[in-house]
Amino acid sequence: MIKKIDHIAIVAPDLDEATGFWAEALGLPITRIADVPEEEVTVAFLPIGDSNLEILQPTNDSSGVGRYLQKRGPGMHHICLEVEDIDAVLTKLQAANVPLINSEARVGHGGTRYAFIHPKGTGGVLIELYEVAAAA
Amino acid sequence: MIKKIDHIAIVAPDLDEATGFWAEALGLPITRIADVPEEEVTVAFLPIGDSNLEILQPTNDSSGVGRYLQKRGPGMHHICLEVEDIDAVLTKLQAANVPLINSEARVGHGGTRYAFIHPKGTGGVLIELYEVAAAA
Repeated sequence: MIKKIDHIAIVAPDLDEATGFWAEALGLPITRIADVPEEEVTVAFLPIGDSNLEILQPTNDSSGVGRYLQKRGPGMHHICLEVEDIDAVLTKLQAANVPLINSEARVGHGGTRYAFIHPKGTGGVLIELYEVAAAA
Repeated sequence: MIKKIDHIAIVAPDLDEATGFWAEALGLPITRIADVPEEEVTVAFLPIGDSNLEILQPTNDSSGVGRYLQKRGPGMHHICLEVEDIDAVLTKLQAANVPLINSEARVGHGGTRYAFIHPKGTGGVLIELYEVAAAA
């Protein structure tokens, strides 16, 4: 059902400063930096093993990630798990009364489908589920 | 220098309840549950892709993990990165003035060598470095 950790997301007030640590001090490559206007963040992608780090800088204080940074400070934000069939996982979680932020999958970058599980149902961890788009 | 994410550690007040979510609702296997007296935790190991989740239940409130749980609540605790040569990484981090919790590697389970980087040097993320013991 769960294939791997697609990424760990880390929130930072300043993307340059944060990537300076991960890329310069630890030597991880940065493969892409992208604006994601629908989430009001700028994101740096750093592959590591079969997974990625995603460093998120909120573009304003009133977005979801911006408010998280104000409240909790910089650090780990969420874990994203790649699943084979996101609809099947969401159906199973709803049957188990696990609270979901998105009860139906949303469509993101490149046709991937994703949904967030509420941290009050997971022991305090914000979890994103992610189903990679099938090749055309 | 960095090979992969060895594990993501999650702190929970009750191991049975936490593993119930990850193992039952998400279907991840639990391969081992172990007491780690030197860290004052009981740990469940759940493999995922080329990585693992480690669910930590502190065995008392005064340990490092116990105090973290009191202060921050349940959720993500640290990220562990597997490295090829932990001494080389620690030397490089010290040269870059990154604050370390362990300036020299400690020896843990099965001869693995590990050290923690202080979150004030990483943008708020507690990072463990981990070098797997060479085969005998």
